Amino acid sequence: MAGSTFGKRLTVTTWGESHGPALGAVIDGCPAGISLNPELIQRDLDRRRPGQSAYATSRQELDRVEILSGVFQGKTTGTPISILIRNQDQRSEDYAHLADVYRPGHADLTYQQKYGIRDYRGGGRASGRETAARVAAGAVAKQLLAELDVQITAYTYAIGPIKINPDNFDPDLIHAHPLVMPDPEAAAQASSYLNELKASHNSSGGVVECIVSGLPPGVGEPVFEKLDAVLAQAIFSIGAVKAVEIGSGFKAAAMTGSEHNDWYRFHSDGRVIKQTNNAGGILGGISDGYPIKLRAYFKPTPSIGLNQQTINSEQENVELVISGRHDPVIVPRAVVVVEAMAALTLADYLLIGATAKVSNIKRVYYS
Amino acid sequence: MAGSTFGKRLTVTTWGESHGPALGAVIDGCPAGISLNPELIQRDLDRRRPGQSAYATSRQELDRVEILSGVFQGKTTGTPISILIRNQDQRSEDYAHLADVYRPGHADLTYQQKYGIRDYRGGGRASGRETAARVAAGAVAKQLLAELDVQITAYTYAIGPIKINPDNFDPDLIHAHPLVMPDPEAAAQASSYLNELKASHNSSGGVVECIVSGLPPGVGEPVFEKLDAVLAQAIFSIGAVKAVEIGSGFKAAAMTGSEHNDWYRFHSDGRVIKQTNNAGGILGGISDGYPIKLRAYFKPTPSIGLNQQTINSEQENVELVISGRHDPVIVPRAVVVVEAMAALTLADYLLIGATAKVSNIKRVYYS
Amino acid sequence: MAGSTFGKRLTVTTWGESHGPALGAVIDGCPAGISLNPELIQRDLDRRRPGQSAYATSRQELDRVEILSGVFQGKTTGTPISILIRNQDQRSEDYAHLADVYRPGHADLTYQQKYGIRDYRGGGRASGRETAARVAAGAVAKQLLAELDVQITAYTYAIGPIKINPDNFDPDLIHAHPLVMPDPEAAAQASSYLNELKASHNSSGGVVECIVSGLPPGVGEPVFEKLDAVLAQAIFSIGAVKAVEIGSGFKAAAMTGSEHNDWYRFHSDGRVIKQTNNAGGILGGISDGYPIKLRAYFKPTPSIGLNQQTINSEQENVELVISGRHDPVIVPRAVVVVEAMAALTLADYLLIGATAKVSNIKRVYYS
Amino acid sequence: MAGSTFGKRLTVTTWGESHGPALGAVIDGCPAGISLNPELIQRDLDRRRPGQSAYATSRQELDRVEILSGVFQGKTTGTPISILIRNQDQRSEDYAHLADVYRPGHADLTYQQKYGIRDYRGGGRASGRETAARVAAGAVAKQLLAELDVQITAYTYAIGPIKINPDNFDPDLIHAHPLVMPDPEAAAQASSYLNELKASHNSSGGVVECIVSGLPPGVGEPVFEKLDAVLAQAIFSIGAVKAVEIGSGFKAAAMTGSEHNDWYRFHSDGRVIKQTNNAGGILGGISDGYPIKLRAYFKPTPSIGLNQQTINSEQENVELVISGRHDPVIVPRAVVVVEAMAALTLADYLLIGATAKVSNIKRVYYS
Repeated sequence: MAGSTFGKRLTVTTWGESHGPALGAVIDGCPAGISLNPELIQRDLDRRRPGQSAYATSRQELDRVEILSGVFQGKTTGTPISILIRNQDQRSEDYAHLADVYRPGHADLTYQQKYGIRDYRGGGRASGRETAARVAAGAVAKQLLAELDVQITAYTYAIGPIKINPDNFDPDLIHAHPLVMPDPEAAAQASSYLNELKASHNSSGGVVECIVSGLPPGVGEPVFEKLDAVLAQAIFSIGAVKAVEIGSGFKAAAMTGSEHNDWYRFHSDGRVIKQTNNAGGILGGISDGYPIKLRAYFKPTPSIGLNQQTINSEQENVELVISGRHDPVIVPRAVVVVEAMAALTLADYLLIGATAKVSNIKRVYYS
Repeated sequence: MAGSTFGKRLTVTTWGESHGPALGAVIDGCPAGISLNPELIQRDLDRRRPGQSAYATSRQELDRVEILSGVFQGKTTGTPISILIRNQDQRSEDYAHLADVYRPGHADLTYQQKYGIRDYRGGGRASGRETAARVAAGAVAKQLLAELDVQITAYTYAIGPIKINPDNFDPDLIHAHPLVMPDPEAAAQASSYLNELKASHNSSGGVVECIVSGLPPGVGEPVFEKLDAVLAQAIFSIGAVKAVEIGSGFKAAAMTGSEHNDWYRFHSDGRVIKQTNNAGGILGGISDGYPIKLRAYFKPTPSIGLNQQTINSEQENVELVISGRHDPVIVPRAVVVVEAMAALTLADYLLIGATAKVSNIKRVYYS
Repeated sequence: MAGSTFGKRLTVTTWGESHGPALGAVIDGCPAGISLNPELIQRDLDRRRPGQSAYATSRQELDRVEILSGVFQGKTTGTPISILIRNQDQRSEDYAHLADVYRPGHADLTYQQKYGIRDYRGGGRASGRETAARVAAGAVAKQLLAELDVQITAYTYAIGPIKINPDNFDPDLIHAHPLVMPDPEAAAQASSYLNELKASHNSSGGVVECIVSGLPPGVGEPVFEKLDAVLAQAIFSIGAVKAVEIGSGFKAAAMTGSEHNDWYRFHSDGRVIKQTNNAGGILGGISDGYPIKLRAYFKPTPSIGLNQQTINSEQENVELVISGRHDPVIVPRAVVVVEAMAALTLADYLLIGATAKVSNIKRVYYS
Repeated sequence: MAGSTFGKRLTVTTWGESHGPALGAVIDGCPAGISLNPELIQRDLDRRRPGQSAYATSRQELDRVEILSGVFQGKTTGTPISILIRNQDQRSEDYAHLADVYRPGHADLTYQQKYGIRDYRGGGRASGRETAARVAAGAVAKQLLAELDVQITAYTYAIGPIKINPDNFDPDLIHAHPLVMPDPEAAAQASSYLNELKASHNSSGGVVECIVSGLPPGVGEPVFEKLDAVLAQAIFSIGAVKAVEIGSGFKAAAMTGSEHNDWYRFHSDGRVIKQTNNAGGILGGISDGYPIKLRAYFKPTPSIGLNQQTINSEQENVELVISGRHDPVIVPRAVVVVEAMAALTLADYLLIGATAKVSNIKRVYYS
C-alpha cells in the first residue's frame, strides 16, 4: 500500500534505487502454464535501455534480466516471478554535489519533505531508472496477453511541437528509428529540433500514443475501477506524465452529442460494428471489443545544462548547472514503459473480469 | 475489489441503481472526533441535484441525506458512516422501450456483454445518479480536510468551445450561476450555446477545473500511487471523462525544460517560494505545498433527442430517438462530483502519508 | 481498510451500531446471474435473531431484510448488493448508566482508548448485533456456493464443559433445538447447565463446529493467504472467539508424523481417496476436495448479573452489576455467524482461484 | 492478492522456491528514519537456519542476507527494502524420484490440482524454506517495533506430549538450547523423545508460545480486522499450523463469565490494572496495553522415513519411503517464524492505527 505495488489480481511490486546495487520486480498472481520467454523480457528492456542513441543519456547499463523464481522448466507455475536487474555504470560521484541541492522539476525537495531523508544519487527511487523494473514486469504481462490474442503497440506521437501525420504512418520506424516515431518526415524534424535543444543545453517534452487491440468486450469494473480510470492511473504513475486522454480525449469537451456518439450496426457476419470509435474502446469503464487508444503527455526532462535558480538544505538560494548524463527527451525511451503499464493493467483486469458471471465460474470448476 | 470501493485508508463504497429504491455510500476509516455537519452534506447534494435549471434534467429528486451510522452526539466515532439517499421520481416507464435497445454512447451494451444481464432502467448502475453517493461521501471527506485547512474548489472551465477568461474570473458565479461558470461573459455565451443545442435536441461537452489549496507538502506515495496518478484515476472514474491534465498538463509536451521547470527561492520569511507552478503542486507524485490544479474533460451527454442508428438484443439494426429527461450538458452538475473525488483522494492520502516517518509514529503514540 | 470490509474479489462491508437506526451490509463482486432468494437471507437472520428462546436475550428485533440494490428481476446483476436491517427494540435507556463505566470483558475501554469517543449504547459498533449484517451477507454467499454445490453446516459442539458425542449425532436438532446442539443427551445436559448459570446470573462459553463439503480441490492461495489462514481470520473476527482449530487442530501437536499423515489411494472409480482427513481438507493452504472441518472456541458472555469490579471515565474504581437483556451463552446464536464467515471466505477464494491457470482464462473468454 | 503479500500499510511480499537460485522479500511502507542493523536480520536468519543441531535437517545454508534497496547511509528511506538470500546446498537430485509422486501431508497434490504444474524440488514454493524470507522481513519489523518499545519473544512450549512447566521457566534456554525450550527438564525429556522418534524414522508436532509486550493500547481495527483475527491469519499462514489460541484460548469455552472477565482497577499511580489477562491483551479486536499471549499448534513434520501409501501422477497406487534431509520436529526452527509474523502484524497495525483520531493527524502535520 505504500505505492510500490500495482494491480489487484495480478500484482507487480517494484523496488530499487537508481544507484543502489540492483533493482527489480516481483509479479504475483501470474497464471500458471504460460511458456515464458526471457528473450522477450530482455528485448523490451533493451528498448528502454540507455546509451543507445544521441537522444538518450550516455549511461551504459546492460540491464540483463535474471529470473529468480516462479518459472519451472520454462513455464510459469503460478507463484511469484522475481526479476533482478543489476546496476552497473553508476558514477554516483556525479551526484555528490547534489546531496544538498534541490533540483527544479525533480522530486528532490518533495522526497525530503515527506521522508526527512533521501538517496540523492541519481534521483534515488524517483529516478526514471525505476521504470526498468516495470518494463520487465510488463513483458511478462504481454506474454500472458499474447496467449489471449491481445496486442499493445506504442510509439512517439509528438516531440515538442512536432507531431506525426497519420497519413505518413510507417510502423517499421517504431523499431527502426531512435526516436520511435513512425513518420519519416516528423522524425527528421524532431531530430533537428532535439539537436538544437541539445546544443543549447535544453530539453523537450512529447507525447506517446498507445493502441491496444484484440481485447475482448467486458473487461473493466464499474464505478471507481473503470478500465479507463485504472489505465489513467497506470500511465500517470510514470514520472513526467502531465496529462492522459483516451479515445476522443480532450477534444470531446468541444463536441456535441451527435458528433461524439458511436453508432452501432450489425455486420452481415453477426459482429457488432461501430461507425466511429470516439469511446476509445471503453464505455462505462468496460471494454467494448474495439481498440483502446490513449495518449500520454510528458513534460520535458527536468535535468538541463542551463543555469537555474534553486535552494539547498542549508536554507540558501543557489544557482545550479546540471552536468551529468541526461536524456534531451524522455519520450522515445518511455514508449515501452507506457506499453508495460498498459499491459499490466489489462492483464490484471482480464483476470478480475473472468468471474463476472456465475456461468463462467461453473465453467472453470465443473467442465 | 469489484469496483465500487475507492481508497485505501479512508474508503468509500457506493451502491445503488438509478431506478432502485435508494442509493448510498459507506465511508470507512474516517478518523474519530470530527464534528460532522449533515447540512454540509446536504448542501453538496443540492449542488448536484437535478431539476434545478433549464440546463439540467427535469427529474425531481429531493436527495435527502440520512446518516445511519458512525456518528454519535454529532461527532464521528471512527466506525463506518453509512449514508442513504432514497430515489423518488423514477418514471421507469420512460425506459421500458429501452429494455432491448443499446443506446449509443451509453454503457448499455458493455454491461450486457460483461454481465449477461443489466438493469436497463435509467442506465442502472452506470447512471450518473450513482455520483450522488460520491458527493455525499466527498462532503464527509471535505469536513475532515477542513480540519486540516485544505480547501477544494471546482467550477465550469468550458462548455463546448467556450472557455472562461481568467481575467474575468468572478468566484461568486460558482454558486450563483446555473452553469457554475465564474466568468459572466463566458457564462452568457455558454447559455446561448446550450439553448441552441437544446432546441436542436443535441448536447455539449465541457471542462471542469479544480483547485486544491492548503495541502501540506509530503502527501502522496511514490511510484504507482503518485498523488497525481490516483487523482487521475479518481477523476477518470466519473462517467463521461475522456481526459485529465494536472498543472501544465497537455501543454507540457510542447515546452522545453527551461520553460517548464519551477524555480525555487527562499522567501525572507523562510518559506519556499516557487516562481511558477507548472508542476501543479505535485513532484514525483508527492505534494510540494503549492496548489494542485487539474482539469477534467467531459464528453457530451450521450442521451440526445436526434435520430440515431443502433442495434437491439434481437440482433437487429434499429433507429432510436431518446425522449426521456436529460441534461443538455453534464458539466455544471459534475463540478461538485469532481470536488468530491478530489476530496476523497486527498483525505485518504493525508491519512496514508501520516506514517511516512518513524518520528511521526512516535509522536502519535508517545506524546 | 479500516476493518469493516472483508474479502478481496467478493467483498462485504458492514456498518451500523447496536442502537443506531439501522445496520447493513454491502456485498460487491457477487457474480451476475444468480437467482437470489430473499427468503433464504431472512431464514438465516431468523436463526441469529434474539428473543427466541430462554437462552437468548429477550430483546425483540424482527430483523427484516431489505435489499436495496444489485438485484434485478430476481437475479444478481454483478453490481453491489446493499442490505438494510432496521433496529427496533433499542431500549437505550438500559445503557445510560454505562456511559461512563467500562464493562469488564467488553470493548468499552479499548474503543475509548483507540478513538477517544464511543457510542456506549449496547456496545455500539462492538456489539454482537453487528453480526446480523454478516449473516445477511453470508446468506448471499451461500446462494453462490449452492450453485457450485458447496454446502456449509455448523452447530453447537460444546457448551461449557458439555460436548456432543459423535455417536449420538442427530442433525435434525440443528434446526429443532434452541441450543442448536445435535446430540439429545448433551443438549439436555447443556440446558440444565445453562439454567443453573442463568439462575446465578452467570454465563457460559462454548464451541461451534463447522463442516464444509463439496468444495472442489485447488481453492486457496499460497503463503499468506492460505485457505486455513483466511478462514482463521474470518472466524476469529467474530467477537468472543479465543481459539480456532482446523482438521486435527490442537491434537496435531502431540501426534507423530506416521499418525498424522493422510495416505492417498486411488479408488477403483478413479477418484483420489484419503484414508484419514487430519488435514481438514486443506494442504499447503489449498483445498484437496475433502471436507473442511473447523472449530471456534467462544468465551463466556461478558455481560453478567454478578457484582464486578471495574473503573469509570472519572478515573474511579467502581462496582458494577449489569442488568440489561443478555444471552447466558452466545454459542447457539453464533452458529449461523460462523457459517456466514465460512461462506464469505469460500465464495471469495473460489472466485480468486478461478484464474490460477491460463487455460481457465482462455476457457472463460474464448469458449 | 495472489497470496504472497501480507499487510496493508507495511507490506511484505515474499518470493522464491526451495531449490531455485534464491529467495527474498520486499518490504514496502517501512517508515523512514529507522537505523537498520543488518546484523539483527542475520541473527534472526541464523536462528531459523538449518543444519545446526541434531534436531534439524542437515541441509547447509548460510542464509546470508543482502539488502538491495531502501536503506541509505544506514537508515531506512521509506522506499521498498529488498532482501535477497541465495540458495546454496540444494541437492535437487534427492527430489528427482518425487517428481511424479504426491507425498502424504505435503502440498504436492494440492499444488498440482490448483496450477496443473509444480516445482517438485524440495516442495518448491510450499517448502518451509520460504519462511526464511519472512524471518528477514520480520527482523526489519522488529527494529521498527523496538523504536516504539514493543518486544516480541517466542519459544517452544511443547514438543509432542511434553510441555514446559511455568515454574521451571528459564529464559536463557531460548537462545541456549537447540530445542528453544525454556524449561531444562522438559527440554531434556523432549530431546529423548525426539531421539526415539528419529531412530524410528518418525517425527513430532509441537507448540510455540509467543508473548508481545509494550504494545500501546488502541492498536487493532474493528470488525473483520481485529488484531487477534489478523494475528491468527498471520500465524496460521505458517505451514503446518493447525490451531491458534489467544489469551485464555480454547479453555475459555469451558469457563463462566465470572471466571473469564478481567476486572479493572486504577493503580495508585493512575495506570489501569487488570487483575487477570484472559483477554490476552486484546478486547474487541483492539489492544488494551497488556501483553498479548498466543500459541501456535504445529503438526508433525510430514516427511518421514517410514513406508507410506500414496499415489503418483500415473494414476497408480504406490509405496513411498522418503530419504532426504528433514527435521524430526519443525517447532524449534518455527519459533522465530512465529515472532516474525507477529512482528509484521503489529508493525502494520501500529501504522494503520496512527490515524484513528483526527487529533493525531493534526499532530503529525501541524506540530
